[in-house]
Amino acid sequence: MVSYLALTLRILEELIGSAPLQRVRVRLWDGSYWPDNAPASFVATWVLNHPGALREMLLPNSQSALGEAYLQNDFDVEGDMEAAFELADIIRAQTEGWSKKLKMAHLLRQLPPRPAAGEQPSLRRAAFADAQHSPSRDQSAIQFHYDLSNDFYALWLDSRKIYSCAYFQNATDDLESAQLHKLDTICRKLDLRPGQRLLDIGCGWGGLILHAASRYGVRATGITLSERQAEYAWEQVCKAGLQDRVEVLLQDYRALEGCEAYDAVVSVGMVEHVGRKNLPLYFGTVNRLLKPGGVFLNHGIGTGPVPNPQQGTSFIDEYVFPDADLFPLSEMLGPAEAAGFEIRDVENLREHYALTLRHWVRQLEARHGEALNFISEPVYRTWRVYMAGSAHQFNLGLLAVYQTLLAKLSPGGAANVPLTRAAWYQPVDGR
Amino acid sequence: MVSYLALTLRILEELIGSAPLQRVRVRLWDGSYWPDNAPASFVATWVLNHPGALREMLLPNSQSALGEAYLQNDFDVEGDMEAAFELADIIRAQTEGWSKKLKMAHLLRQLPPRPAAGEQPSLRRAAFADAQHSPSRDQSAIQFHYDLSNDFYALWLDSRKIYSCAYFQNATDDLESAQLHKLDTICRKLDLRPGQRLLDIGCGWGGLILHAASRYGVRATGITLSERQAEYAWEQVCKAGLQDRVEVLLQDYRALEGCEAYDAVVSVGMVEHVGRKNLPLYFGTVNRLLKPGGVFLNHGIGTGPVPNPQQGTSFIDEYVFPDADLFPLSEMLGPAEAAGFEIRDVENLREHYALTLRHWVRQLEARHGEALNFISEPVYRTWRVYMAGSAHQFNLGLLAVYQTLLAKLSPGGAANVPLTRAAWYQPVDGR
Repeated sequence: MVSYLALTLRILEELIGSAPLQRVRVRLWDGSYWPDNAPASFVATWVLNHPGALREMLLPNSQSALGEAYLQNDFDVEGDMEAAFELADIIRAQTEGWSKKLKMAHLLRQLPPRPAAGEQPSLRRAAFADAQHSPSRDQSAIQFHYDLSNDFYALWLDSRKIYSCAYFQNATDDLESAQLHKLDTICRKLDLRPGQRLLDIGCGWGGLILHAASRYGVRATGITLSERQAEYAWEQVCKAGLQDRVEVLLQDYRALEGCEAYDAVVSVGMVEHVGRKNLPLYFGTVNRLLKPGGVFLNHGIGTGPVPNPQQGTSFIDEYVFPDADLFPLSEMLGPAEAAGFEIRDVENLREHYALTLRHWVRQLEARHGEALNFISEPVYRTWRVYMAGSAHQFNLGLLAVYQTLLAKLSPGGAANVPLTRAAWYQPVDGR
Repeated sequence: MVSYLALTLRILEELIGSAPLQRVRVRLWDGSYWPDNAPASFVATWVLNHPGALREMLLPNSQSALGEAYLQNDFDVEGDMEAAFELADIIRAQTEGWSKKLKMAHLLRQLPPRPAAGEQPSLRRAAFADAQHSPSRDQSAIQFHYDLSNDFYALWLDSRKIYSCAYFQNATDDLESAQLHKLDTICRKLDLRPGQRLLDIGCGWGGLILHAASRYGVRATGITLSERQAEYAWEQVCKAGLQDRVEVLLQDYRALEGCEAYDAVVSVGMVEHVGRKNLPLYFGTVNRLLKPGGVFLNHGIGTGPVPNPQQGTSFIDEYVFPDADLFPLSEMLGPAEAAGFEIRDVENLREHYALTLRHWVRQLEARHGEALNFISEPVYRTWRVYMAGSAHQFNLGLLAVYQTLLAKLSPGGAANVPLTRAAWYQPVDGR
């Protein structure tokens, strides 16, 4: 009988032997490395924790298998998690095609299954019964992710708990200043003035409404479907003494009533949860709520122009962002224009999201032990792998993030936008 | 028999009597005004030149009737031509609906036809036999507009003969500096560096390639289908002594061969002539020509979110821009993304085009007499009415102009774009 070590090495050779592996190496359960002579440039190590590791990672006919094997600790990643995706990409590319798959399956089946000894960790998986993007299911999907644990998020987000792409004036900026810069850039793009009414759809832990109210003097309404976010945001409002001009509501955007109530509307990192079929309703609702001439800044992730093999995989849907729906920018802008919006400005911030996610991953890894006070090891791994994988995809251009400024024109064609964007880039003291 | 004067006044009352006419009045052929007491704010006068004027303007069942009546001098406009469109809009709105049309037609038929006396000016109208957006017909359509007369265009364009939307740092900037600022903004967005190769599709009279070559040191290729533009642009290249690094070709974008030949591609005011069905070919061609990581700045007019009653009217197609095709931005970006482009930046410059067109119209009106050395009175009127009407539509948001920066990603996801747009807004000495 061939040894499991020899078989594992043979599979690695078949899969990766010819690929230009630069930054990743593999360590087997006996402490040996593959390849023997790893390049000096390696920054990440895949650790196969038992003889059945590759079988669990690659044999199940499921798009989530590799991710689930990581959550189950069949393998681990030491070092740079983002770089480790290079190896995943190679494996994915090498196992395309039916005959290659068949040959691999034959080898993988000769490896043993995961050791039964010990307790398997239970995985936190989303599963909903009602119709996708119904208000009730959307609430469940949002709470699955954002109600995980405020303490957990606090470990690795910036002090304002901004859970979306920061804006770096230089790539070396720290996360704290880049998030503040992002908040301020949004307020500038919205051209906020004291006394104006601002609606924030998907307000998270309240960072933007607090900034807009305290620095720009607006009356702000934030809505979210996450109970933990709403509670936390309201605490922050009270701490800042802004109860007279900021409100936080646990509410679906579809439940917003009224007409022409707001001077400006903003939505940061929420449109990903809306779903393609509801885009007309989403943009139509915001258009109705805006005063004529008012502007809507919609900030969200879209897919890039490069065909994305990971697109539509079930791992993100099952374990991270259930029901999230990403698509190209043009498919976002069509319903926006159809709802009556004029497109005023679009900025692609994908390099900023790669930088942001790297900060989050590094901080999460640094707080691993503390994180386990609030969440399980598989959940820690879920967030680690999803955030590093997203950084990888933003870096390659498989994902993008678009900040889009839309205007609801007044009957005479006026919109509250400046003649040029120059003012958005003027330094302002004290911010 | 009711007098033509009384009948004309009755029609005006029926059509416009209830509308809030602020800036326009009407003068009849006998020198009398309607309304008697024009508001103090009037800035334009419609002059009905004969008793049959309204009949010629409103009775023919053709979308071009009103425009043709202006070309034929059945009526004239004194004062602010752009403001005069307020009255055209009111007439259009008031004559919607079958019963209203029928009632109006009954009245209009009682007016006499245009006086037969004198020679009718012949109108310069486009008519082509071959298939729309075939290379041969596109060449004819382009030459219909742009080969009109270099001397005519020189009368009212800026000194560089830039025939597209300028970029005003302040609304009070003069046209000369705003066009220079536009050229420089485009070069900045393209991040041009000495020695790079730039392709300008639809290079007009050469202003942009000359600026890019002289100020940014690029090697530039300009293509156009207009013989007069190509001749003029090449003369300018020779005058500037830039023959070693600028070439001008009389060529269709579809005839461009090669792969990965250019660091940057730009197209300003050309995509309007491409036609919706050819957008995949257009973006696909540019994508092929660009080096990986290279950027494409596509600048062109699109339709706004407001339903546009003028959209698709035949006057522009017959007399001004045959075969031009305008549509919402989302319909432009879909084929761009499908061709492999990542959308990096979009800026809507419609207020700038309204300002630009006002400069052109004012200058054209000031050079009316000189213009008739090069073109006929009906052609003068054609350009006056199309440009003022376009300013009106940009002002209302019926039209927009989008400067879109697209990137062809390198295999690793890199694109030649800066981390932020701040550098585009830094003052640079000497430019």
